[in-house]
Amino acid sequence: MNLIEELKEKLAPDRVTTNETILDQHSRDESYHTPRLPEVVVFPESAEEVSEVIKLANQYKTPVIPFGLGSSLEGHVIPPNRGMSIDFSLMNKVLEVRENDFLVKVQPGVTRSQLNKELKKYGLFFTVDPGADATLGGMAATNASGTTSVKYGIMRDQVRDLEVVLPEGEIIHTGNLAEKSSSGYHLNGIFVGSEGTLGCITELTLKVYGIPEHIMAARASFSTVDDAVNAVVGILQAGIPIARVELLDAFSMKEVNLYSETNYNEQPTLFLEFHGNEAGLKQDIEFTKDIVLDNGCTAIEFETDTAARNQLWEARHNAAYAYIHGNPGKKLMVTDVCLPISHLAGAIKDARKAVEESGLVGGIVGHVGDGNYHILLMIDVNNKEEIQKSEILNECIVEYALARGGTCTGEHGVGIGKQKYQEKEHGPALEVMKKFKAVLDPNNIMNPNKIF
Amino acid sequence: MNLIEELKEKLAPDRVTTNETILDQHSRDESYHTPRLPEVVVFPESAEEVSEVIKLANQYKTPVIPFGLGSSLEGHVIPPNRGMSIDFSLMNKVLEVRENDFLVKVQPGVTRSQLNKELKKYGLFFTVDPGADATLGGMAATNASGTTSVKYGIMRDQVRDLEVVLPEGEIIHTGNLAEKSSSGYHLNGIFVGSEGTLGCITELTLKVYGIPEHIMAARASFSTVDDAVNAVVGILQAGIPIARVELLDAFSMKEVNLYSETNYNEQPTLFLEFHGNEAGLKQDIEFTKDIVLDNGCTAIEFETDTAARNQLWEARHNAAYAYIHGNPGKKLMVTDVCLPISHLAGAIKDARKAVEESGLVGGIVGHVGDGNYHILLMIDVNNKEEIQKSEILNECIVEYALARGGTCTGEHGVGIGKQKYQEKEHGPALEVMKKFKAVLDPNNIMNPNKIF
Repeated sequence: MNLIEELKEKLAPDRVTTNETILDQHSRDESYHTPRLPEVVVFPESAEEVSEVIKLANQYKTPVIPFGLGSSLEGHVIPPNRGMSIDFSLMNKVLEVRENDFLVKVQPGVTRSQLNKELKKYGLFFTVDPGADATLGGMAATNASGTTSVKYGIMRDQVRDLEVVLPEGEIIHTGNLAEKSSSGYHLNGIFVGSEGTLGCITELTLKVYGIPEHIMAARASFSTVDDAVNAVVGILQAGIPIARVELLDAFSMKEVNLYSETNYNEQPTLFLEFHGNEAGLKQDIEFTKDIVLDNGCTAIEFETDTAARNQLWEARHNAAYAYIHGNPGKKLMVTDVCLPISHLAGAIKDARKAVEESGLVGGIVGHVGDGNYHILLMIDVNNKEEIQKSEILNECIVEYALARGGTCTGEHGVGIGKQKYQEKEHGPALEVMKKFKAVLDPNNIMNPNKIF
Repeated sequence: MNLIEELKEKLAPDRVTTNETILDQHSRDESYHTPRLPEVVVFPESAEEVSEVIKLANQYKTPVIPFGLGSSLEGHVIPPNRGMSIDFSLMNKVLEVRENDFLVKVQPGVTRSQLNKELKKYGLFFTVDPGADATLGGMAATNASGTTSVKYGIMRDQVRDLEVVLPEGEIIHTGNLAEKSSSGYHLNGIFVGSEGTLGCITELTLKVYGIPEHIMAARASFSTVDDAVNAVVGILQAGIPIARVELLDAFSMKEVNLYSETNYNEQPTLFLEFHGNEAGLKQDIEFTKDIVLDNGCTAIEFETDTAARNQLWEARHNAAYAYIHGNPGKKLMVTDVCLPISHLAGAIKDARKAVEESGLVGGIVGHVGDGNYHILLMIDVNNKEEIQKSEILNECIVEYALARGGTCTGEHGVGIGKQKYQEKEHGPALEVMKKFKAVLDPNNIMNPNKIF
């Protein structure tokens, strides 16, 4: 028997496929990275099946690539050379909502919007919201974050427990259901963000929050990006517990208006949101108004009804799709550095200059409250000059961040695209990571060629 | 040359000692665990010196035990059999305050009160506050937490970067200065809470917060512990962003009054604190009042001036010392489980019954907002029956927590005392931890016999 025949025996023939269309769907993510076909795609229904599949992969020394929805941005789900893609779309159930414990247990194929739809019934919500409607397994694998991380934290902060199938097939739990623990090494932390290189996540227990009593959103326009960034620094330094603070430059506002059919000012803009009790919110908003006006805000508009607020955040979440839609035939390349907040204004100023000088189509959006911003570049992957320019640009941006104690990736992960910066960013600590990888995955089958 | 002669050559003769009094000081912590003398105590002044010392320890296959102030509660700093204690009291400098980034860089021997004294000049504070005035190196090693963790998180949440000397002498950095990162494996997370078994922490970059605009504290008395716990669950479920919520049972209140010369009601009591803007705080407090009164609160008193508020928290922090002081000749044993909040009332009810049945001297205090509570037991370590009773009690408490998805240690760490529960709590995940330990520390010199 060969691998595919054995797989069909372990799972079921209809959940093991070499269909060309399906192979093609599992060859790419949403980025500019070159697609490569897997050899086979499997659709397990349980951790036990994942374990069986991984044991076979070890036997055949075949690479294993966990696959959620393929919305990653650094080539995480692209097979190294053939290999087996494990698609989690059949493991897509919300298993348990423990409303009194603010916990939810889900399978890895559940998407964030699917989860929030279910949680709404309980007056709860899941905070982490990357642009894409990604799966929670994928979000844990890349340590995703989003617009609300400035208040509620990143994906790693939400994970209480993972069920993981290790590279040799053993099934473990990495945590427990308690709010905190000092018992043994923090395995939750190391598996979140390991990008499928240390095992397959087959279940997640996540922290959720009560939907805030009061929510208020606003758009603040500025004449320059610098003014907007300085306003953010002011808000943070005033200790205002802001729930969201997102920057879009003038170019991004144009793309957003076109795609989302909004008519927002096409100036550098902050999208803001406040969560809390009514009286506290009012005071926070008054204070924020003072700060943004002191920093050159030219107009601030509040979204008073829920529909307008939802439209605002939908427009923000669709910013990357707005770029893709507005630039047919081109592919998305996104930078993703994160820096200490005191260096953010300088970094963004430097980045804007670099984009202008490169002559590429691109704009800036970002979770500026965390010191994380993105340049969205639309490139023609068949045009060598454009690719080269975008790579030089990315390199400049990363160098600037690393020189100031920042990181090459705030939330997208390393995948293929950020491998070249790992040595520089981590120094000898990279050897520690490699040792952990080697000791858990001696045959190097779990998503090889990612991170390292 | 022997180890001690070589150490004297690498450091300086006066920073390598075998003085009996100093050896004795490094043989114990604040718990009931049996002291054991190290062979030698060294006082390094830099990471480079720590590296030299650890390289020698490898050569001589001598255990290395990092030592802060010896305030641990599970025997973490007790040498396994002789070995070398590394005392960090000469590495006690606050190296840098980056006020605009809300970051501080410190050496491991800095204590939390020393740091807060320095930070106050900048209007900042460090949030984590275990009972003892521990060193920050020790707090990171055990993943300590305290009264404010319900709002600001635990020690692991504050660590942006550690400088660590690995078990073979290499010096690494585990993180960076950015608010978030998805670059490589999360080494910060695994070194925090590793209890000196993976290396020596020689520098920490920590997150700090602005001192809140307004702070209000209160004491709420209840007729029963159950009522108090139910009130806490109510506060959390209402989504009130409470900054501190601590429980002391009637017995603990008596000990506190005696030791701290206060005259608080000697009933089950919640110590509460709120941080925020004035208007928001007022609304939070009104809501909290309603909730505690609905749950059988018999009296609520607000500490309006800063002195009374400070006295309240000093009394709380000294609770363990109050027990020690009130029971001369006995030693402290503290349970430390943490459970999902929905199981907290049941767990504490069960614990109280078990203490009463055991006939031991003990009371309950706890960070109940996190689901973490302690039974403080005063035992005569020369009385075998008392030791046995306290061990049976601890075991019951841990079994209760583990059966409900909790952990055997919420904040004190494993050390010696919680080793026996590791297999049960972690299952096959314990093997992953052991693999990580073995691959970084092939000679098993770093604080051996701890955790595993």
